[in-house]
Amino acid sequence: MNLADYLAARRDEVESALERFLPPEKGPGATVARAMRYAVQAGGKRIRPILALTSCEVCGGSSEAAEGPAVALELIHTYSLIHDDLPAMDDDDLRRGRPTVHRAFGEAEAILAGDALNTLAFEVLARYPNGDAHALARSRAVELVARRSGIEGMVGGQIADLEAESQPANEERLHWIHQHKTAALLSASTELGAIHAGATQDICQALAEYGRRLGLAFQIADDILDCTSTVADLGKTPGKDLRAGKATYPALYGLAGAQERAQEAVEGAIQALKQVDLLDERLEALAHFSVQRAG
Amino acid sequence: MNLADYLAARRDEVESALERFLPPEKGPGATVARAMRYAVQAGGKRIRPILALTSCEVCGGSSEAAEGPAVALELIHTYSLIHDDLPAMDDDDLRRGRPTVHRAFGEAEAILAGDALNTLAFEVLARYPNGDAHALARSRAVELVARRSGIEGMVGGQIADLEAESQPANEERLHWIHQHKTAALLSASTELGAIHAGATQDICQALAEYGRRLGLAFQIADDILDCTSTVADLGKTPGKDLRAGKATYPALYGLAGAQERAQEAVEGAIQALKQVDLLDERLEALAHFSVQRAG
Repeated sequence: MNLADYLAARRDEVESALERFLPPEKGPGATVARAMRYAVQAGGKRIRPILALTSCEVCGGSSEAAEGPAVALELIHTYSLIHDDLPAMDDDDLRRGRPTVHRAFGEAEAILAGDALNTLAFEVLARYPNGDAHALARSRAVELVARRSGIEGMVGGQIADLEAESQPANEERLHWIHQHKTAALLSASTELGAIHAGATQDICQALAEYGRRLGLAFQIADDILDCTSTVADLGKTPGKDLRAGKATYPALYGLAGAQERAQEAVEGAIQALKQVDLLDERLEALAHFSVQRAG
Repeated sequence: MNLADYLAARRDEVESALERFLPPEKGPGATVARAMRYAVQAGGKRIRPILALTSCEVCGGSSEAAEGPAVALELIHTYSLIHDDLPAMDDDDLRRGRPTVHRAFGEAEAILAGDALNTLAFEVLARYPNGDAHALARSRAVELVARRSGIEGMVGGQIADLEAESQPANEERLHWIHQHKTAALLSASTELGAIHAGATQDICQALAEYGRRLGLAFQIADDILDCTSTVADLGKTPGKDLRAGKATYPALYGLAGAQERAQEAVEGAIQALKQVDLLDERLEALAHFSVQRAG
């Protein structure tokens, strides 16, 4: 298997699905609908939907069953980026090489576009896959994604990350932030695929653990990218974390130490799958990919 | 029945349930948890949860079945107020007589507290009432509330309302804004009660229609209050709509004309229930209450 080809094919599949789920740009709410589409179409790796689709197939489900849920994960990720970029938060002008949503559409529009994407994600999770037979899985999916993206998950990580700017670097807090800010939603992605494949509780837990460790690797790689890249590489302003005095893995362990910890997380992710005899070459390659981006 | 006593008893019930569903104020996300509780505890009429509980009982269900969903509606209403008050939106310093969340906790904290409340609402809708037998109703509840609070509902109304500041008053647009900004979530409240009572499609639709018309009456009454009240009456800065040049019912029809239209909406709400032989003294009194506040 060629991972680059696999990622490209899956990304196309995800982007075409996203297009179908976005609201029409008409009527009095058209500005926000345009801002939503602008943000979603900015691109990105689509790693959360790809993890959900792949996990569903690896657990014996069909990727159609996970299509709606996969889209929902990307909508939540996109809403979190829009709000994260706001002047009151990270105050970023660029995202993936283009003006951030509040720079392109205005701040009120960015706040509402984020709110609408978050809400649309739950509508999609509640509707797909269709049919009364899937109602229990849908209800579990909504609960899972809400937990992992709310105060006990992603949003909790975001506030802790903001507050960490005024506090000395601390290993325990940094780990907590990375687990919540990034790993929580990634682990929801892999577990969601397992849920919609009708997998057992053990398999669901293993996929969640795989996603959590992959998420940690991913976030460490992001920290490394932030201190080693240029604007052109990154599509956004690099070095902001360091200047903001934020705790990051490279700041705490040095570059080599951070890379080592990312590699450990990758191996932990693969190990979680091995323990339930679920190793799959795509999931293994995706785990390695999460840190190779930073190489 | 004494409506004031009924509202007070139900408000106590709702506030005690809200307290149980809010996250603990500990750990790295504690600031946002505090901001969430501060916003929720600011009070208010709790009209959305009261409508859900009452509608559930009127349709033959038990109020316990609607308790979680009722809480979720108030969480969504609260998140919308927090974001509405932000400097980039209405820029309000006071809400219910106290500093708004961004004034008390900071702007980033207010954005994230709103996001976390929105997300928590869907977690609660997906979890309650418990049990596999209720999974289909929960999944319908999530879909309904997401539709009515997202771009096709409340958020759509908010952006149209903001954009209306720069446009001449227009009857059709004003009606659209009121239907979306306020009536959409109120109609979700009454329909949600019917869903969790296991009501037929006809009854669900009638309750939705009742909620929609009551919501219109409610919003017209709000417009009237904004131009006739003092800060002490209102707990927030009055007259802002007029100064912002926003289209309101009093601006378009005069005070008497606005009151007449609110009364028509109340009668339409009651009529919607009569058509399915569902008249109940509490729902009738609640419909009248929606405009009496403005008297």
